[in-house]
Amino acid sequence: MKKLINAPDAVVDEALAGMTAAHGDLLKVIEPNVVVRADAPRSGKVGIISGGGSGHEPMHGGFVGLGMLDAACPGAVFTSPVPDQMLAATKAVDGGAGVLHIVKNYTGDVMNFELAAELAQAEGIEVTSVVIADDVAVQDSLYTAGRRGVGGTVLAEKIVGAAAEEGQDLAAVTALCQKVQDNVRSMGMALTSCTVPAAGKPTFEIGDDEMEIGVGIHGEPGRERRKLASADEITEALLTPILDDLPFGSGDRVIAFVNGMGGTPLIELYVVYNKVAAMCADRGVTIERNLIGSYITSLEMAGASITLLKVDDEMLRLWDAPVHTPALRWGA
Amino acid sequence: MKKLINAPDAVVDEALAGMTAAHGDLLKVIEPNVVVRADAPRSGKVGIISGGGSGHEPMHGGFVGLGMLDAACPGAVFTSPVPDQMLAATKAVDGGAGVLHIVKNYTGDVMNFELAAELAQAEGIEVTSVVIADDVAVQDSLYTAGRRGVGGTVLAEKIVGAAAEEGQDLAAVTALCQKVQDNVRSMGMALTSCTVPAAGKPTFEIGDDEMEIGVGIHGEPGRERRKLASADEITEALLTPILDDLPFGSGDRVIAFVNGMGGTPLIELYVVYNKVAAMCADRGVTIERNLIGSYITSLEMAGASITLLKVDDEMLRLWDAPVHTPALRWGA
Repeated sequence: MKKLINAPDAVVDEALAGMTAAHGDLLKVIEPNVVVRADAPRSGKVGIISGGGSGHEPMHGGFVGLGMLDAACPGAVFTSPVPDQMLAATKAVDGGAGVLHIVKNYTGDVMNFELAAELAQAEGIEVTSVVIADDVAVQDSLYTAGRRGVGGTVLAEKIVGAAAEEGQDLAAVTALCQKVQDNVRSMGMALTSCTVPAAGKPTFEIGDDEMEIGVGIHGEPGRERRKLASADEITEALLTPILDDLPFGSGDRVIAFVNGMGGTPLIELYVVYNKVAAMCADRGVTIERNLIGSYITSLEMAGASITLLKVDDEMLRLWDAPVHTPALRWGA
Repeated sequence: MKKLINAPDAVVDEALAGMTAAHGDLLKVIEPNVVVRADAPRSGKVGIISGGGSGHEPMHGGFVGLGMLDAACPGAVFTSPVPDQMLAATKAVDGGAGVLHIVKNYTGDVMNFELAAELAQAEGIEVTSVVIADDVAVQDSLYTAGRRGVGGTVLAEKIVGAAAEEGQDLAAVTALCQKVQDNVRSMGMALTSCTVPAAGKPTFEIGDDEMEIGVGIHGEPGRERRKLASADEITEALLTPILDDLPFGSGDRVIAFVNGMGGTPLIELYVVYNKVAAMCADRGVTIERNLIGSYITSLEMAGASITLLKVDDEMLRLWDAPVHTPALRWGA
């Protein structure tokens, strides 16, 4: 295992200490390992929280700050955070206007966020939840009933975070988050496995001439193991099921997100985006905005995912609104 | 070779096409493969140009835009661009106030930029050059007389770009760039090799229990091949020579840049940053700003580099100035 770490069980804590040292103007880390916006709680503002296993950085801690998340709950690597974290996060960001939990659809995350919501409600905090389940690759999986939550989560956190920042109420931001979920679709692939530090060996074996189409963000199996193909063929294999699923059609406007899995360099993501742009143009789908980079990763896995979100003027306005977090920043 | 590409000789062109498709509001690509700011030339503004081999993305094309570069010249992967590109870039951004070439210290880059500068001057464009040579690892190398130019280039381009954006003249921005060069030091390391697409096999062999300390950004050898060590030990091995070289001492203020080589996930860079912050605090060095991410890469190499730049109030003001490029953006 070749990693820039000190000890497998120290990675998450030390990375959080590094984030605190680097971004103390934006965030703080409170017990039990919750990344909280530095100025939380903000009176009258709906709190936006997400969380999940570590190993997907910058998601979610890197999205804490102005115009995005109020708190993030990082679990151990590829392991759901515990309800205590989610409850502490909820209490830390409660400004009296309620709190929205944005939950990726994995069994542990969903169960623990549900329990935390009940506990918070018992303490008088109004909590709503939206489950993101945008991965068209498989219906159920190792860790999921229903579709997995992947890249759509990043877009949801930005757009919903902007709505909360401008003062929209809990019902409105919850409905908006559900609208993003209803209009977003993703799929990913892997060229290599990743290695969970505590495991010390690759999550899965894959041949030098093979790739996994539809891989999950924990390295869990996707649709099929195939022989290596060109970037254009891979992009077609990911984007065609996405386009067909919603479906996205002529006249639709989208945000297109080409995401790296952690070990894939940016130059390759632009090769993929070039094909995404061509395929969308062929279908009459207009890419209004794009995001290209490694934002929801699987440690050092080589691979990429594609996400399309069908948008309207209001969602675009919220996408463009100022954001200032460690990983996403503009207009501020 | 596992890459998201279509053909080894198409990677650069297709990535540039992807950049054009994604960032047409910021940049355009003109013949012969020059990334130019969309609104170039800007009358009365000093033009800031850089360039070098591809494979280091987002450097340099990802830094073209408001407040940073006016143009970037991407060569083939790990190969210097040709003088024709540098000449075309110089002419494309010349707004009558002269053009600064920011050149990383590699023999081919230096020679070709010198020739391009002569050709541009023959056409009546005033050109100055600053060579960045910030890598303390080795004095000479496979591709270099003197120190190599590495992470300091990113910081130089941001700070000098801001000075040009606010209207400083050619002499001032040139002197500022030299001041950055005089006050910046870097060193990197690799856990794995990278594979140049046209070569199809790893640039160097490295054992499962080995790492290369002081590696160059083309995978060229550094100071020594060592057994794997902890992130803290690696950070000490990189940062101590940096601190001792300038030297950086008590009372100094710095921008600290922890850079990923392309295949290293962000979570590991924060583990490294945590140790950088502790070591700087121990020496009485104040980190005023930081940059953490993969900005000057070596394709999919796993590894990291550290850069420290000693700054004053003016350099911090220029660092904080608005920038809007594909890869660096704030305040705009």
